[in-house]
Amino acid sequence: MTTSRPARPPQAVQGFERSEGEVIASFGTWATGTGPIYRRLADGIRKAIEGGSLPPGQRIPSERQLATVLRVSRTTVVAAYEALRDAGLVESRRGSGTRVAATARPTRSISDGRVPGGTGSSMYQRLIEGPGDLISLTCSAEGAVPELVAAFRELAGADLATAFDEPGYHPAGLPELRQAIADHLTATELPTTPDQILVTTGAHQALVLVSELYLRPGGTVLAESPSWPGCLDVLRSRGAHIVTVPLDDEGPDVRLMAEALADRRPDLVYLMPTFHNPTGVLMSVARRRRIAELCARHDVPVIEDNAYIVQTAAVAPGPSPDASRPLGEPRDLPRLLAAYAPRGAEVLSAGSLAKVIWAGLRMGWVRGPAEIVERLARRKALADLGSPVIDQMLAARLVPQLPRIEAARAPERERRLDRIEKLLRDRLPEWRWRRPYGGSGLWIELPGVDATEFSHVALRHGVEVVPGAVTDPSGAHDRFMRLPYTFTDEVLDLLVDRLARAWAEIGRHGPVDTRPVRVIV
Amino acid sequence: MTTSRPARPPQAVQGFERSEGEVIASFGTWATGTGPIYRRLADGIRKAIEGGSLPPGQRIPSERQLATVLRVSRTTVVAAYEALRDAGLVESRRGSGTRVAATARPTRSISDGRVPGGTGSSMYQRLIEGPGDLISLTCSAEGAVPELVAAFRELAGADLATAFDEPGYHPAGLPELRQAIADHLTATELPTTPDQILVTTGAHQALVLVSELYLRPGGTVLAESPSWPGCLDVLRSRGAHIVTVPLDDEGPDVRLMAEALADRRPDLVYLMPTFHNPTGVLMSVARRRRIAELCARHDVPVIEDNAYIVQTAAVAPGPSPDASRPLGEPRDLPRLLAAYAPRGAEVLSAGSLAKVIWAGLRMGWVRGPAEIVERLARRKALADLGSPVIDQMLAARLVPQLPRIEAARAPERERRLDRIEKLLRDRLPEWRWRRPYGGSGLWIELPGVDATEFSHVALRHGVEVVPGAVTDPSGAHDRFMRLPYTFTDEVLDLLVDRLARAWAEIGRHGPVDTRPVRVIV
Repeated sequence: MTTSRPARPPQAVQGFERSEGEVIASFGTWATGTGPIYRRLADGIRKAIEGGSLPPGQRIPSERQLATVLRVSRTTVVAAYEALRDAGLVESRRGSGTRVAATARPTRSISDGRVPGGTGSSMYQRLIEGPGDLISLTCSAEGAVPELVAAFRELAGADLATAFDEPGYHPAGLPELRQAIADHLTATELPTTPDQILVTTGAHQALVLVSELYLRPGGTVLAESPSWPGCLDVLRSRGAHIVTVPLDDEGPDVRLMAEALADRRPDLVYLMPTFHNPTGVLMSVARRRRIAELCARHDVPVIEDNAYIVQTAAVAPGPSPDASRPLGEPRDLPRLLAAYAPRGAEVLSAGSLAKVIWAGLRMGWVRGPAEIVERLARRKALADLGSPVIDQMLAARLVPQLPRIEAARAPERERRLDRIEKLLRDRLPEWRWRRPYGGSGLWIELPGVDATEFSHVALRHGVEVVPGAVTDPSGAHDRFMRLPYTFTDEVLDLLVDRLARAWAEIGRHGPVDTRPVRVIV
Repeated sequence: MTTSRPARPPQAVQGFERSEGEVIASFGTWATGTGPIYRRLADGIRKAIEGGSLPPGQRIPSERQLATVLRVSRTTVVAAYEALRDAGLVESRRGSGTRVAATARPTRSISDGRVPGGTGSSMYQRLIEGPGDLISLTCSAEGAVPELVAAFRELAGADLATAFDEPGYHPAGLPELRQAIADHLTATELPTTPDQILVTTGAHQALVLVSELYLRPGGTVLAESPSWPGCLDVLRSRGAHIVTVPLDDEGPDVRLMAEALADRRPDLVYLMPTFHNPTGVLMSVARRRRIAELCARHDVPVIEDNAYIVQTAAVAPGPSPDASRPLGEPRDLPRLLAAYAPRGAEVLSAGSLAKVIWAGLRMGWVRGPAEIVERLARRKALADLGSPVIDQMLAARLVPQLPRIEAARAPERERRLDRIEKLLRDRLPEWRWRRPYGGSGLWIELPGVDATEFSHVALRHGVEVVPGAVTDPSGAHDRFMRLPYTFTDEVLDLLVDRLARAWAEIGRHGPVDTRPVRVIV
């Protein structure tokens, strides 16, 4: 939790240069290959050059720097660079360090598909390549709930020939699904009509479309510190500056948020009020109300992303209970942020079935004023002409069951949470975290160790870690990492065992801090 | 067909101003409402203002202009503008015409979701709103083939609990589907490996992702004249200039294409070689080879969009048969353009199940060099983290059956084609077209009448026409319209009846040509 650090003022982040961190991230999971370690490292760098991620002339870290960051011997890096020089892929010159050779490979000068300055690329790369023998902590998704199989079989028994006898293009969403989502939100005390719902390919695409509508290159987004790299990459890909506000136990710091709204005049505010990813913070009712009012006063649209709305346990009454609607009921969540917004406020609420039903359905939505939803539907049509119909038919059958499905799964999530907490207490007693009420991961503080450096060691032990640095454009949270517990017992056991071995190794070498002291301006 | 016109040099089109045509298009399908016609027109304009499509200060056509273009009486327009002035929505000033009032509505200054200068928006709008009582010619999709229902039921009987027991994120595509598509293409004599395939949400998204990779604002795309407005909007939305090359019976004019490649140095070439939409032209083997070689020589990547690869009849041997592989076999198509490309050429081939199985599956793909496909996969991850898994499982079962499914449907398509041709010959004997070998529509030439003007009359008779002007950024083809015949017999009969009534009405008033003479520079 960020409360252990002094609150810092919001900071703008641009970063369209290829930093040392980005260069090293582009090497990918080289450490997991076979053969001598110098050869694996050289292969990782070669692939980054051939794949266009490291253009000719790009500077790469010195041998000493790289050895320190990757926690390998300097001899390993020297041998790897030597092999690359022999292959004509890099050049070293006294005074200007090592660079990708100008003749390395005449790649077409198109994008390598990554977001410039982005930190989410390595997560996407993992999804593209698949985890292999790695346990990847980039993704917290599980298999489907059994209710999906039941819905599928039920649909198979329906009159499909008639159901499929239409052109199949529904950019705004299948009418029956828009209705089901509207009814579901209305039941959570956020009155909603179907024309306020746009169906999207996951909450992710909702953020993409909202960004397209509100952001122009050079625009500004206010986000939480930390936030989620995959989402930050979406904002960055629009050419937006990201300004961050730190979180406390109840949500974003209101005083700093007010300052940022006044000083930076953002075009959009991006928040995760419900089991924030990666910290697990559940924004309190009082904070929801204050932030909704604040943004309305500054006339700034808000996108609230509630993709992680799964509970592990009853939500305790928050420190600031809603006087008009006490949170005394067990498992009662605050309403969505939009429900606390004053009249005329522009709050868009993204939701998803990924964590409650199955990410493979790729079903999400965004709720907002009908006139904004119509604009978003035009962007959806431009993006893909609409989501597939079959998944929407299944979703329309499942959305009305959400409260029941969610309640049925909570005990199992709680059991896994208990299990990983016990494993961590036993094997990694120095690690620190706070038990969340929901979401799907722990936010771990590594005492005295930079999580990026730990990630290099963990990779050699078969775990891909999401270090805090990539979650935070302001550069804070270097010593944190996200630890999802959405795995089977067998994988959870193996995961903690691998992490413990990596931790023991880094302990033997002792923590190394080679980074310059950060100066806060 | 464009052969009746002299070939014109390629022309650049920018068009980021809101033209008279765009303003009128933003009124939507006002003519189809109920009540007095002036009231319907006023309502259409009011909605365009309230929806943000016509910003405060935007000039709208004079009463005389609008009456001429819409083919309504001037009294109607005078009454409509009067009502809008009374509502404070428009202002008329002597000398500066009629404009949206500055105080009309303080909409947030965000995009209305339409592509600036785009002509595809009205098609998207129809998909969003649904056709209602209109017969819309914007969309040529049909209901699903029965094989989809069979595949769905077969999948329902499989071990779904196991199949769904994985996280569900596959940005590059489900491995079994990538394999099936690669095998399918290999069987069409285009050897392909699974890592050369990216699964997309329709061929449409393939074009979106390819555009993201290759186009920057101010870049240039070479496209055919005419082309498809929905696709042109994708290119425009990247801020690209569109340069066009006219088509003849065999495909794009090679001499003009060579000139355009040399003079305009485009970043990307966008072609529809197989039953080009809207003309239905099937690019010959000789032309495929020459164009692939030409683009390779100029080092320009090509995206070929083969979404309309459905046949109505055996393809006759083309005027330039491939000496090495005669087209003697009935129903034999030329191979994809990529198959004729020299080594090292960068040809991306988009495909789709939309016309062969069902558009509601939203299943498409793009084939290309593996290193480009990996870059595209990163953009796919950024766009939506991957397509839904269930549709991909269904597609993986259907792709191997494609040749059989396609052959089974061809006679029905041919029968519908026969039917619409007979109806047109009977009711609209002045209209001109050429029978295509495939695709899903006719490219009709309206003798002496501007198709945009005809579209306003047709709308009042319950048909939404896609006029040639929106298919062609160069401004040619004003007298053409696309006429899909993918309707039931009942709808086909009604459609031609409505078109014939509209044609009779425009005949009574006589063709009006109010546009200035176009000057070709």
